Amino acid sequence: MHVFVFKQAPVHKRLRLCPCRNPALPPSLAPKRMILLLESPQYLLPALQNLKYDSIVRYSTIKMVKSKSWTMVKHFEGLPKLEDFKLEEKELPPLKDGELLLESVFLSVDPYMRPYSKRMMKPGDVMIGSQVARVVESKNPAFEVGTYHVTNVGWTTHFISDGAGFQSLPKEWPENLPRSLAVGAAGMPGYTAYFGLLEICNPKEGEVVLVNCAAGAVGSLVGQIAKIKGCKVVGSAGSDDKVTYLKEIGFDEAFNYKTVNSLEEALKNASPEGYDCYFENVGGNYADVALQQMKQFGRISVCGAISLYNDSVPATGPYIQTYMLFKQLRMEGFLVTRWMQRYPEAQKHLLKWIAEGKLKYHEHVTNGFENMPAGFIGMLTGENIGKAVIKV
Amino acid sequence: MHVFVFKQAPVHKRLRLCPCRNPALPPSLAPKRMILLLESPQYLLPALQNLKYDSIVRYSTIKMVKSKSWTMVKHFEGLPKLEDFKLEEKELPPLKDGELLLESVFLSVDPYMRPYSKRMMKPGDVMIGSQVARVVESKNPAFEVGTYHVTNVGWTTHFISDGAGFQSLPKEWPENLPRSLAVGAAGMPGYTAYFGLLEICNPKEGEVVLVNCAAGAVGSLVGQIAKIKGCKVVGSAGSDDKVTYLKEIGFDEAFNYKTVNSLEEALKNASPEGYDCYFENVGGNYADVALQQMKQFGRISVCGAISLYNDSVPATGPYIQTYMLFKQLRMEGFLVTRWMQRYPEAQKHLLKWIAEGKLKYHEHVTNGFENMPAGFIGMLTGENIGKAVIKV
Repeated sequence: MHVFVFKQAPVHKRLRLCPCRNPALPPSLAPKRMILLLESPQYLLPALQNLKYDSIVRYSTIKMVKSKSWTMVKHFEGLPKLEDFKLEEKELPPLKDGELLLESVFLSVDPYMRPYSKRMMKPGDVMIGSQVARVVESKNPAFEVGTYHVTNVGWTTHFISDGAGFQSLPKEWPENLPRSLAVGAAGMPGYTAYFGLLEICNPKEGEVVLVNCAAGAVGSLVGQIAKIKGCKVVGSAGSDDKVTYLKEIGFDEAFNYKTVNSLEEALKNASPEGYDCYFENVGGNYADVALQQMKQFGRISVCGAISLYNDSVPATGPYIQTYMLFKQLRMEGFLVTRWMQRYPEAQKHLLKWIAEGKLKYHEHVTNGFENMPAGFIGMLTGENIGKAVIKV
Repeated sequence: MHVFVFKQAPVHKRLRLCPCRNPALPPSLAPKRMILLLESPQYLLPALQNLKYDSIVRYSTIKMVKSKSWTMVKHFEGLPKLEDFKLEEKELPPLKDGELLLESVFLSVDPYMRPYSKRMMKPGDVMIGSQVARVVESKNPAFEVGTYHVTNVGWTTHFISDGAGFQSLPKEWPENLPRSLAVGAAGMPGYTAYFGLLEICNPKEGEVVLVNCAAGAVGSLVGQIAKIKGCKVVGSAGSDDKVTYLKEIGFDEAFNYKTVNSLEEALKNASPEGYDCYFENVGGNYADVALQQMKQFGRISVCGAISLYNDSVPATGPYIQTYMLFKQLRMEGFLVTRWMQRYPEAQKHLLKWIAEGKLKYHEHVTNGFENMPAGFIGMLTGENIGKAVIKV
């Protein structure tokens, strides 16, 4: 194999090609082909058109782009701990035709990562998750440098992709809104609230909607969307600050489930007539109590069960079939991905409501990729109001 | 008040009116009016048209119609016992204008009576339930003597009604079918199977449907309707005879849940790929095991929870929210009455399928109203194949 490295780009008036074997060259580029490594190929291509190289790749990509990732050392037991995570670094190979290099700008930490780590990951894998990422180099005409996309490549600072499965941020992203909303109120948690409430609970004007984890990324939106639809909204959360926040954003009733004497009483006081809709983020004992206060034909949207995610031994409670039966309740679990084709519709509504001031959002930002495990653990223990994000 | 009793009907050629005060005359007929009591007014009315009585009522109704009812002495604890029931007798008053006298021909015993006794009844009340009843006397032109109706007046041999809420049997009731089907395969259990399966599970051709209590009044129909819709059907029941019956009526797989080594294994063997639809009659531990074998987007129709009805202390099991969530399951409890407006549609289909031989029915008939409590207890302990009915 012959590799030519041109070291002084973009000074194409002083072209100087030096044959070498670059020890950093990754195996994927090792066929016996003529490859020209350049620091800035876009400047030099016109000048080099008459040379017959098989590939012209960016020198700096090979030499300089390092990607950091957080891997899971071993499966979590109970609440994840800092030592369950390991920061790893690797160099990324140069881009091939059709590929992009992206850098993560905001990374999302979400409750689903806890149960999914068990279902989808093995020790040593990069933690699952999504991010808002910016294209920093492109060999794919469909994706311009500088554009932003929501991607789903896990806890990683830099990565190469062909762009498949990207949810691109609208080019007309409102200037006054942070792009982190694309993994927040106008992204997955927003879609979750939008579809999980509207499609599964289908709340009617005047009905009573109960939301728990109500100050969380999803719950806070569910309550506000229910208000937009003309419902009475009751929310519970785990601190007085959160309760204050819920009242600020328009919940009719809110209480701190950790300090009330009895959850049953608190729910009864908040809505003596009972509940038509119940947006479930908690599960377990909370659900037992809430189920008893559903009205006939009540609808329960099971979005999460955070009280159960860290159990090593499954928790138990009374069987629910008799409640389901005599109150004719409907309970449905969902993963938001089932509505993936309709994300743009939801994003349009969510951004519109945000712009109109009908949907307020709050972000709990952890600065620095190195703090991502701590941000994740904090989110699981409920330290956040609104959406927990990591700013790289 | 003057009351005239004509004693020798229908011999209207020898009319003989004798004024009297009848001590059996109930207070509702005590206004100071002229009332003619006759044994068979329909024969005599033409002859008496010129007499100005305020009311002409049937003498035999007052004197002779005794109604027997089974009352609940005290709320059941665990499985109902014979001494929890008491047979009571009373005389019925004469009919007023607009009323009918009916006699029960077939009475239904159903699982729902056990939990509903707790919810709707107090000690001393007549046991709730429905029957096929025949009009034996009518002062309501909308209901002819000799017509049959499904009524909902409890465990009673005779009763007076204005006909409100009756579900009348079609006049063209097929000659070769017993009218008991109107409280069975072409009645409430039939509607329950029809709507509970089709509306809630909405099974598609080729899907796998699980039914428990499969040899019961509802389960046996659910399985057959699922077959009509092109599904693979798996049923479980509590005796080898029932399993044999299930195979006779076309279930693809059937097993005796009491004798299999492991319910989990039995369900896996019957459908290694899992289940799309689950028609739930049992609840409790059975549901725990079955839930784990649902496929993504599985639907669970909660029709009953017979394993839980007799519990004095609510039984417990693992929380189900995580299963509901990650498999995106939908579970809905229902009472068939929500589809009351559509009963005629269901009955038409059910009778058609029965006539075509696509829907087989089996009745477990207990003879004699005096044996009704025993028939009820037997049904709760699973002695019946198909529908348990009492023939008066």
